[in-house]
Amino acid sequence: MPHINVAIAGFGLVGRTIAALLLERIPTYRDRFGMEVRLVAVCRSDRGTGDARGLSAERLETLDRESYGPDFLASFSPHVLIEAGPSNFRDGEPGLGYLEPALRRGSDVIVVSKAALWLDGPRLRKLATESGSRIKLSAAAGAALPALDLLEHSLRGCEVTKIEGIFTAATNYLLSAMASGTPYAEALESVQRAGIAERDPTNDVQGRDTAAKLLLIANFGLGLMLSPEAISVSGLETATPATMAQWREQGRTPRLTARLENDAGSWRARVGVEALPPDDPLSRVAGKDKAVRITSREMGEITAIGCGPEPMATAAAALKDLEALLAHRRA
Amino acid sequence: MPHINVAIAGFGLVGRTIAALLLERIPTYRDRFGMEVRLVAVCRSDRGTGDARGLSAERLETLDRESYGPDFLASFSPHVLIEAGPSNFRDGEPGLGYLEPALRRGSDVIVVSKAALWLDGPRLRKLATESGSRIKLSAAAGAALPALDLLEHSLRGCEVTKIEGIFTAATNYLLSAMASGTPYAEALESVQRAGIAERDPTNDVQGRDTAAKLLLIANFGLGLMLSPEAISVSGLETATPATMAQWREQGRTPRLTARLENDAGSWRARVGVEALPPDDPLSRVAGKDKAVRITSREMGEITAIGCGPEPMATAAAALKDLEALLAHRRA
Repeated sequence: MPHINVAIAGFGLVGRTIAALLLERIPTYRDRFGMEVRLVAVCRSDRGTGDARGLSAERLETLDRESYGPDFLASFSPHVLIEAGPSNFRDGEPGLGYLEPALRRGSDVIVVSKAALWLDGPRLRKLATESGSRIKLSAAAGAALPALDLLEHSLRGCEVTKIEGIFTAATNYLLSAMASGTPYAEALESVQRAGIAERDPTNDVQGRDTAAKLLLIANFGLGLMLSPEAISVSGLETATPATMAQWREQGRTPRLTARLENDAGSWRARVGVEALPPDDPLSRVAGKDKAVRITSREMGEITAIGCGPEPMATAAAALKDLEALLAHRRA
Repeated sequence: MPHINVAIAGFGLVGRTIAALLLERIPTYRDRFGMEVRLVAVCRSDRGTGDARGLSAERLETLDRESYGPDFLASFSPHVLIEAGPSNFRDGEPGLGYLEPALRRGSDVIVVSKAALWLDGPRLRKLATESGSRIKLSAAAGAALPALDLLEHSLRGCEVTKIEGIFTAATNYLLSAMASGTPYAEALESVQRAGIAERDPTNDVQGRDTAAKLLLIANFGLGLMLSPEAISVSGLETATPATMAQWREQGRTPRLTARLENDAGSWRARVGVEALPPDDPLSRVAGKDKAVRITSREMGEITAIGCGPEPMATAAAALKDLEALLAHRRA
């Protein structure tokens, strides 16, 4: 039976959940694909562990100092690298440092964090083309929200004219609280206390998390070459109390939305707070739900709404990519 | 360049739309898959036309008497048969008569009408397994609604516990009209006048169209072996004026829903009118929209809503299946 070596870079909550789910599914992979999947190495920023014969759940409990970094993982010759580290939008590290050499040597990669693909997607895609490897990014581009699947499978062959989405859940809570008159600072404190917004909410509230997902969907789902600068991005700072009060009177719901539209052959992308009218189904996307609506000439509007339990949904999204890679290798 | 011969059985509005879209996309197939796709034969119940070198749009305008039937199509050795005839739930014909020999001789099939798969799905699936051919049925199982794609791709590897759906648009209109006090007969006449309900609305209002889609999704999306008798099916006859008035008072919305639930390892399936509470997003599915909600252990609830322009959406669904087959043949 052919074996497939998998390595995981980034071993926080998401990385650990991916590892646990992968180990649980090894017998399924054997049955379904006739392949022996092995988790050969994992690491975080300062420690890790590896075993060419495959790691057990027990072995993942104790990580060794000095077993980490791209060279450590590469020494186990992974066929598939799962990159699940933190998203650092300044320089894309540490993810980029793992992804680039993996793609150069022809490993398939499953990307969970957004920053490297946001900053450097077209170049990484070129590396993959050159080495014949594949980049999968369901977990980075919406996790349980199947935006890329809709484009790749459900709308195969169709002419997509527009993609709209609500991609960040924390801002749903914030905007709903602000819409009922709660000041921003107070709303933020309360969603942070509830564990919904991150301790540093900058990427969420300034729209960068949403913009990154839009760019990933555009570049990898539609094959565009959007650069971060090509997206007009604003965040919750535009939702002043006066504006909010006015929208409330109009019966409109404020939401941080992403929009990508084909305007006479060229694509325009923007992220910002919009006041959605009550008859727009996106206005009812609330709480933890995220949504994407894709318009095509042939199939009209298709909307998908999802809010998986985290970190499980993200882990399952990464492993659905693994199954797609296994199916592709088998074919 | 390898060529792929396609034949279409059933040449009404949907069959013609598929043919036109296919001819339009031949250059795309050449670029994208390196394959020369030819439409070699089409037929309806009493006439058709064929050309081993590929039919042009002009050639489709005049059909010849006596050029029809399974043997006529088979004489052009199609690699792919698209079955787009009427859905006849009594005996599955004429679809079954085309599908069965095609699968026996190893052709891939794309199924648009539901009846043959409703009556005889597991047997046809077995024929396909034996001959190494593939059955694709996106158009029959929801068209623009990507129920099968969610199961096959977005939830790959996940443990699905429940599938719920609103699969028939005509009943949305009927139930909404009845909920506001319009008698059934009057509501039916008005949606028939608007071209939303078929002249013979039996399959829609008795729940069979919905049940057939549920069975197709269960059997081909989850690999179950549900028989039509295993689905408890009721239709709009349960929505009496008194019940409707009571639901209206409770603020609930009547919808014809399909439900498939895993109950301690065995699957239960039912179709019937339910009164959905206002906080259930399915209660807001109205007009031409259809919806499917799939619950899994790993990804929670994922809902997809769609209403493509017909017959284009159904044609595009059949041809997304064709692209999946081309991709599979190339791999």
